[in-house]
Amino acid sequence: MTGKLYVIGVGPGDPELLTLKAVRILREVPCICVPKGKEEGQSLALSIAQKAINLDGKEILEAYFPMVKTRESQESGVNSQGIKKISVNGLDEKWDEAADAILNKLKSGTDVAFLTIGDPTIYSTFFYVHERLVKVSPCLQIVFIPGISSINASAAAAGTSLSLADEKIAILPATYIEDIKDTLKEFDTVILMKVHRVFSKIRSALRELALIEKTIYISRAGMDEEKIFKNLDDVKDEDLNYFSLMIIRK
Amino acid sequence: MTGKLYVIGVGPGDPELLTLKAVRILREVPCICVPKGKEEGQSLALSIAQKAINLDGKEILEAYFPMVKTRESQESGVNSQGIKKISVNGLDEKWDEAADAILNKLKSGTDVAFLTIGDPTIYSTFFYVHERLVKVSPCLQIVFIPGISSINASAAAAGTSLSLADEKIAILPATYIEDIKDTLKEFDTVILMKVHRVFSKIRSALRELALIEKTIYISRAGMDEEKIFKNLDDVKDEDLNYFSLMIIRK
Repeated sequence: MTGKLYVIGVGPGDPELLTLKAVRILREVPCICVPKGKEEGQSLALSIAQKAINLDGKEILEAYFPMVKTRESQESGVNSQGIKKISVNGLDEKWDEAADAILNKLKSGTDVAFLTIGDPTIYSTFFYVHERLVKVSPCLQIVFIPGISSINASAAAAGTSLSLADEKIAILPATYIEDIKDTLKEFDTVILMKVHRVFSKIRSALRELALIEKTIYISRAGMDEEKIFKNLDDVKDEDLNYFSLMIIRK
Repeated sequence: MTGKLYVIGVGPGDPELLTLKAVRILREVPCICVPKGKEEGQSLALSIAQKAINLDGKEILEAYFPMVKTRESQESGVNSQGIKKISVNGLDEKWDEAADAILNKLKSGTDVAFLTIGDPTIYSTFFYVHERLVKVSPCLQIVFIPGISSINASAAAAGTSLSLADEKIAILPATYIEDIKDTLKEFDTVILMKVHRVFSKIRSALRELALIEKTIYISRAGMDEEKIFKNLDDVKDEDLNYFSLMIIRK
């Protein structure tokens, strides 16, 4: 009997934003696989879950995924196992390793929970591991438990609606400023992810488009250090981080 | 002392998808305001919450919002209280009534929870009430508790990622087929809401665009009757309903 894999979104940081289902499954499974962005220190997803529920006695598998840029389009190719190569800087090998470790556990009949921050279907690296798992074992039982994404948590923290009636929402990384200008014309709400590296550029563009007063910047939504900026000129360098986004509501 | 208003997303239907925070606040507040789409019968949001937590002894305020089309663009105007008129068919009056009932409770010092299905910031009618509340009482304490939206629940049920790396997501009502064609060119993932009334048209358009095999239709995600269709030709009339959406993943 192969074990079942649960992919669980633990929400953005506030342990109270775990769902009842996430808590129940974490109580039941003997083994938890957690992603880590740094080799040292603890997994953020694990630390969120541990604040909600006692995980003493569970086996913890750590999967180390260095936070480097993936380059799907530029670097596509196929690796030795016939799996589409989608990364540089050794990420493939890390994902292969994580998939192997999870498969070993499942094959021994153990149920495993894989934790992701936020929601597992929104910008979660789990899907790189998923591709490997289903390639090797197409019949695995994989159950996704949705979580509160940073997008929902940010809108809630800012007290703003993202959409009403027939409105349209776009969610995109703040990478290409020209794309953003076009998108802002077509959509009622635009959510910019990964905005910390290009913050000044985006702010200038929004000022030029007369949208700066319709923009909210939220840093670390749902975490202890959550900050909400309705005036982008108040944002300081220390407020720029990976866990931040902008909501532009026209 | 004015009471505090909590706006709580109860998720898409599965009572286990309530967050710990939603459950705690529902235990604490003495009064719960629940929206209803029909005058008879029970509120869906309330029935979801009641499966997760015993609400006996709580005061329940029912707010009846008929499910008619809002026409923000065509029918804008200003009502007698200076609030932008955004609906037809008597919805304004219903929202005014709900706002009044909530304000009366808050002014008596009672904390109130307003329940929404899914997440309160995604296509939730609460914001029509919100506009009225802040107009009359700008200093109200309103706390939003995010919930699992039908979008996250649908992607989880279908086991599909909505976005990876630098991908772009669009969420839009299936109202204007031409918009959808343009959006499909620009975005990696398109989520079509309110698709049940135009299902055949959309299916034909997706076939024409050679995207039909990249599309999943999910009916009643996170509810007991959840159904997932990876082949749109299997969808029958009885599978078309308000609680359904399409995920097109290119």
